[in-house]
Amino acid sequence: MNYPNKKQTSNTLQKINTNSKRGMSLEEDINLTNEYYLAHDIAVIHKKPTPIQVVDVSYPSRDKCMITKAFYKIPSTTDYNGIYKGKYIDFEAKETISKTSFPLRNIHDHQIEHLKNIVKHGGIGFLIISFKEYGECFLVMLDFVLKYIEGPTKSIPYKDLKENCPIIKYNYIPRLDYLSVLDGLL
Amino acid sequence: MNYPNKKQTSNTLQKINTNSKRGMSLEEDINLTNEYYLAHDIAVIHKKPTPIQVVDVSYPSRDKCMITKAFYKIPSTTDYNGIYKGKYIDFEAKETISKTSFPLRNIHDHQIEHLKNIVKHGGIGFLIISFKEYGECFLVMLDFVLKYIEGPTKSIPYKDLKENCPIIKYNYIPRLDYLSVLDGLL
Repeated sequence: MNYPNKKQTSNTLQKINTNSKRGMSLEEDINLTNEYYLAHDIAVIHKKPTPIQVVDVSYPSRDKCMITKAFYKIPSTTDYNGIYKGKYIDFEAKETISKTSFPLRNIHDHQIEHLKNIVKHGGIGFLIISFKEYGECFLVMLDFVLKYIEGPTKSIPYKDLKENCPIIKYNYIPRLDYLSVLDGLL
Repeated sequence: MNYPNKKQTSNTLQKINTNSKRGMSLEEDINLTNEYYLAHDIAVIHKKPTPIQVVDVSYPSRDKCMITKAFYKIPSTTDYNGIYKGKYIDFEAKETISKTSFPLRNIHDHQIEHLKNIVKHGGIGFLIISFKEYGECFLVMLDFVLKYIEGPTKSIPYKDLKENCPIIKYNYIPRLDYLSVLDGLL
């Protein structure tokens, strides 16, 4: 493979050797897992780039374009999508430092709307929610999230997740094998 | 719907009234079409954001982050993906000013590899190729592209497209109904 983010990957791999699992971000863990899935022909799932509104650019040399003024935009969809066993997969991944609940204000309303649309059209939509303090990561199907979205606290209690949603275990390779966990739910 | 790009959309709609079809970019045409598909529950297909490597940021005020130095990265996948009739859809859209052929150097090798992976996993991969001079737009399935990718000229002659690939007609609404054309091929 000759992917443009290859350099980034080898940096990430170096980090594994020196950091504990707490040191890695959820995003890095999922990206490593997706690279494993791709290399082993299990699934094709990528993180979408962060949407950025470019305002000004300059040209320090004839064939180089440098962005000199830009702003982050609110994403209109989720971070991850792709294909697994012929099925369209779509999910958002979030970390929380809370020990008691996952606050749903971490997910934008239109991201929930997007996931609802995906499920309506026959795709699979879910969240990966990581509790940093416990080093625990849950796979939470959209249906379960929707039960709490209209609730008074707009959050999912940790104990409800623990009782109802499967944990995605941290491994060495693949790092966070969420598709095996998904298999058990489908 | 309350999408963050709503403002952008109404600007784009205004442009339709004042510009000829040549004045609209292929990207704008496809984005409008995808908005139509979403609003009418036909499909959920989005353009991915352009990947940008952020180098420096500044904070002009406490809750505002401004990017002051960044560079465009080479995309590792295609521009568009989503779900249609339960199927994973993935494509790249390109314009050419050539009158005789579409140069395949316009598509990165890893984008072709990505489309091959998608088809291997049961998805639908294709290109939308627009010849600006003719105002003609073709839907070109990946299999057809692969016949030319190893060829001596690394390009697809216009006449081969005209003879073998369906044209996506320009309409008022939806602008460029590529999914109806896809239906005819599946």
